[in-house]
Amino acid sequence: MTTFERSDRNRVRRVPERGIYDSSSIYQIVDDALVCHVGFVVDGRPFVIPTLHARVDDEILLHGATTSRLIRHVQAGHEVCITFTHVDGIVLARSVFHHSINYRSAVLFGRGRLVEGDEATMEALRTFTERLLPGRWDDARSPNVKELKATSVVAVTIDTASAKVRNGPPGDEEEDYDLPYWAGVLPLRMAVSEPVADGRLPESVPVPGYIREYVKERE
Amino acid sequence: MTTFERSDRNRVRRVPERGIYDSSSIYQIVDDALVCHVGFVVDGRPFVIPTLHARVDDEILLHGATTSRLIRHVQAGHEVCITFTHVDGIVLARSVFHHSINYRSAVLFGRGRLVEGDEATMEALRTFTERLLPGRWDDARSPNVKELKATSVVAVTIDTASAKVRNGPPGDEEEDYDLPYWAGVLPLRMAVSEPVADGRLPESVPVPGYIREYVKERE
Repeated sequence: MTTFERSDRNRVRRVPERGIYDSSSIYQIVDDALVCHVGFVVDGRPFVIPTLHARVDDEILLHGATTSRLIRHVQAGHEVCITFTHVDGIVLARSVFHHSINYRSAVLFGRGRLVEGDEATMEALRTFTERLLPGRWDDARSPNVKELKATSVVAVTIDTASAKVRNGPPGDEEEDYDLPYWAGVLPLRMAVSEPVADGRLPESVPVPGYIREYVKERE
Repeated sequence: MTTFERSDRNRVRRVPERGIYDSSSIYQIVDDALVCHVGFVVDGRPFVIPTLHARVDDEILLHGATTSRLIRHVQAGHEVCITFTHVDGIVLARSVFHHSINYRSAVLFGRGRLVEGDEATMEALRTFTERLLPGRWDDARSPNVKELKATSVVAVTIDTASAKVRNGPPGDEEEDYDLPYWAGVLPLRMAVSEPVADGRLPESVPVPGYIREYVKERE
């Protein structure tokens, strides 16, 4: 486990006691997120693009078409900020001022490089696919040479990072606890519904066990 | 309704037929999102921070402590990129290459200004609170003078914007449709669970109707 040094870039300023700097807690937030938001600078201007990701050790893999602006920008070695956010609940306090949300967010900084070679690219695509849905790689047609050539994978080495987490009930002013307003949390979660089969799928193809399991755990 | 002119900043390059430029479609994506990701540049470096937002006409309101770095940066008039993302499903194709997610994302660019005056700040806080949970403003203690002074609201005027949407089933290569793999979509949604009352709430305070309704529509 790494503890990232606090600097101007990664220090949590507002409510510093919510700041987290150890890589294992930060990486858990990363791994739990389906998408991330990648920030980059072009001609001094900020851009933020959502994309899929996969973490391998201290690197964040991103992928896209070889022509993608984001991928080309990362590939060129420019600095990026990658942010991962979970919204876990709406926090309803007795006072408007203490309304909040429960969340887990991680902010990572680093620079990327192109993952080179068909073998390494193939391995990265396997990682992406298994992250999207564990068990899927072996139950789909593998990328062919043409598809492999059309895809670029970049690996961003994490230079520094931090996370910020809020959980639990509202924190009201002591004198407000007697007010007659309902207070508490509305829990939020990303839920999965029943699989919708493609219209051209023969009825003879059942929903595989790894999909049924994935849905069952997240309904 | 505005249609944003396409430029280097907002043009959707990858899969351009998924690009959307009319403000009503873009604002729907904005309004449906609980949080956004704000990108900004400090000393040439990118930062991406998640935060709550509220749209009023062609402006995005953000709020925070008067000491917040993000708020101060926006208040100073620097350009920001604000991105709103919904993940609607995991798209399972017969080929690994055509795996994807269904999503709606909007990317807005603009510059902000401080919302000045207690009355305008109070009105903005009402907008935030009602957006977080419709009906809540009248069922919580209003901000007092001290709390109002501790809060800054900034309004970002949208200069240009675009959105990108993918929905529907996987799009496989014609020759792959006979492969024996299950294909379709796993729908995802943000679900709300039963309210969790604060431990210090007297049992005599029932869950109000507007909260029961909000949960019922999103269970």
